[in-house]
Amino acid sequence: MSALMSLGYDQMQLAPFSAALAQQALSIDFGTRSYPIEIGLLDWRELGLRLTHRGGLAVVVTNATVGAHHGLRLRVALQTAFTEVRELVLPDGETFKSWTSLQSIQDALAQAGADRKVTLFALGGGVIGDLTGFAAATWMRGVRFVQVPTTLLAQVDSSVGGKTGINLEAGKNLVGAFHQPAAVWADLGTLKTLPTREFSAGLAEVIKYGPVADMAFFAWLEDNMGLLLQRDERALAVAVRRSCEIKAAVVAADEYEGGLRAILNFGHTFGHALEAGLGYGELLHGEAVGIGMLMACSLSSTCLGLEAGLLARLHKLLVMAGLPVRAPRMPEDRFLALMRGDKKSQAGKVRYVLLSRPGVAQLVEASDESALAAVRTHTV
Amino acid sequence: MSALMSLGYDQMQLAPFSAALAQQALSIDFGTRSYPIEIGLLDWRELGLRLTHRGGLAVVVTNATVGAHHGLRLRVALQTAFTEVRELVLPDGETFKSWTSLQSIQDALAQAGADRKVTLFALGGGVIGDLTGFAAATWMRGVRFVQVPTTLLAQVDSSVGGKTGINLEAGKNLVGAFHQPAAVWADLGTLKTLPTREFSAGLAEVIKYGPVADMAFFAWLEDNMGLLLQRDERALAVAVRRSCEIKAAVVAADEYEGGLRAILNFGHTFGHALEAGLGYGELLHGEAVGIGMLMACSLSSTCLGLEAGLLARLHKLLVMAGLPVRAPRMPEDRFLALMRGDKKSQAGKVRYVLLSRPGVAQLVEASDESALAAVRTHTV
Repeated sequence: MSALMSLGYDQMQLAPFSAALAQQALSIDFGTRSYPIEIGLLDWRELGLRLTHRGGLAVVVTNATVGAHHGLRLRVALQTAFTEVRELVLPDGETFKSWTSLQSIQDALAQAGADRKVTLFALGGGVIGDLTGFAAATWMRGVRFVQVPTTLLAQVDSSVGGKTGINLEAGKNLVGAFHQPAAVWADLGTLKTLPTREFSAGLAEVIKYGPVADMAFFAWLEDNMGLLLQRDERALAVAVRRSCEIKAAVVAADEYEGGLRAILNFGHTFGHALEAGLGYGELLHGEAVGIGMLMACSLSSTCLGLEAGLLARLHKLLVMAGLPVRAPRMPEDRFLALMRGDKKSQAGKVRYVLLSRPGVAQLVEASDESALAAVRTHTV
Repeated sequence: MSALMSLGYDQMQLAPFSAALAQQALSIDFGTRSYPIEIGLLDWRELGLRLTHRGGLAVVVTNATVGAHHGLRLRVALQTAFTEVRELVLPDGETFKSWTSLQSIQDALAQAGADRKVTLFALGGGVIGDLTGFAAATWMRGVRFVQVPTTLLAQVDSSVGGKTGINLEAGKNLVGAFHQPAAVWADLGTLKTLPTREFSAGLAEVIKYGPVADMAFFAWLEDNMGLLLQRDERALAVAVRRSCEIKAAVVAADEYEGGLRAILNFGHTFGHALEAGLGYGELLHGEAVGIGMLMACSLSSTCLGLEAGLLARLHKLLVMAGLPVRAPRMPEDRFLALMRGDKKSQAGKVRYVLLSRPGVAQLVEASDESALAAVRTHTV
């Protein structure tokens, strides 16, 4: 193995963790492309007012499930701010993060007569956000879009930072673009109707921020997991806000993933291979990432001498969060082939985000043998 | 009608026209993303050496026609600079600037195990360049690509400036991205095998630079059209280089088409409608643009009082270049609908690049009635 790059906390601007809730709205610093991230129990009637660009056509993209819960509310909220509001409802699920869905959004835009002033609204989870963002990135070479994340995973991770894209059979997110939203509207109220399994899957991405950047937050999660599972509003506000703060600090320092941003992929090299190998939908993304983080911890022990204590704490926290901690069995050559297809890989060498100690990540090339040993440790 | 924006020559950095050939290579100024544009009778064995990034996988995308002429030569040239060189051959024609072709490039990249270090080479005309550039813009959210334009149109226009995309049934280039190439390799030698009709179509885009930015160049074209049609190397070098100089100056001043860049679309609002309305392939892009420029001149007379002299000179130059000067008949409501779908349109209003005087352009909203009158003037 060889350590390629240290991915340090010191490379970003991030205030220490505090469980006291800040009053001011969060924003992500991209100079002229900076955008607000609204988090809380939000009044949707204010959404239109908060947007700096109004008027013209608004197109809401959502799925059948989320659309039924929140579609009407969003369309009504937008009617005061836009001349025309349309809605496009896609089928629900990771399998629909595809060329076909992308084309159906573009065709709908063409049919609606959308011009460069159109604003898209991604109402839903990560699939809808990534798809809609990619459609916005490529419609007429780029138009505005707003993220309205309604899952925990989307609120703490995918809606912030501008990664958009679709899956190919060969792997997740292989085709896409960097395209920052104009705003993120994360209403904690939408989490009330989220199925338990999806809520837990989102917690995996919350937990992720601890080992790579903020062990104080990790300790807070250990103390407050019970409240979070009850969807206590105050605990949720702390968890979502801190997750977004960390993500915003990382992404502002490294928009195009030249280095630091890779820490957000902790557990994802293993996790993506699990998802793709088992067939999308077998494990939820967050579930796969949770198991992937355990594998990455074991590999970190082998490669970087990470103390065993963190693996035990992470294991316990994932179990508390209601997440699976063992992967279904998968042929090992398939596992390796999928990891080689990961976007961090270069010249056929798989690169892993590993930990030298809790809270400190590195980008490392590890041998296939040691990677597979880590996989075996966490497979049924 | 209302004039929305003056698109001035003074907004860019452009030296006066000179028919004396400059010695230094042309480059386009995008700060750290600046790139060289090599123009001349080039030695392809030097191509590898000129690239700042070498090694890894190179994927050449071309079509059957161009591939047969230049494919082997390019692959041989790249073998010294890259570990592996692959070629993907697509069918030839504007109808293949489609989702299907884009997907076939992405699938080929997945199959080749392409990672973020892959370099794509677009060997061909505008279709191959736009398609390959869009594939590069979106593969793993953006990888390097090199333009190797083999048509006059691609050398003087589409290969420079980073516009990439595909066509939808609803209109041309509706889906795409801004993605600058790493280099442009414009070998005038490839123009020798170009069919006469395609060569003439390319001349339309050369001629375009006169009315919107450089009447001295226009006058030179009037004097040298005979030499150009004989594909005289020296004349070609002047024409291609000056076209690229103007394009580079415009694009460097306005990469994302906030204003000035629209002048490059002179004649294109009418032209795109002609192309799409008649069915792609009926008129070549350059042919449609040529007729579109005549329509734009007539509309400029109505709206901005442009003197009649320019229309007559343009008409004569197009005829000399072997280009059609009258459009086939098309239903007028269809014509208007297609123009409303143009990317410059806003809130259903069509915006035209018109001339207040030779060499000076403005962005103007004109009435449908006056636009159709201009169409009729130049329809059989």
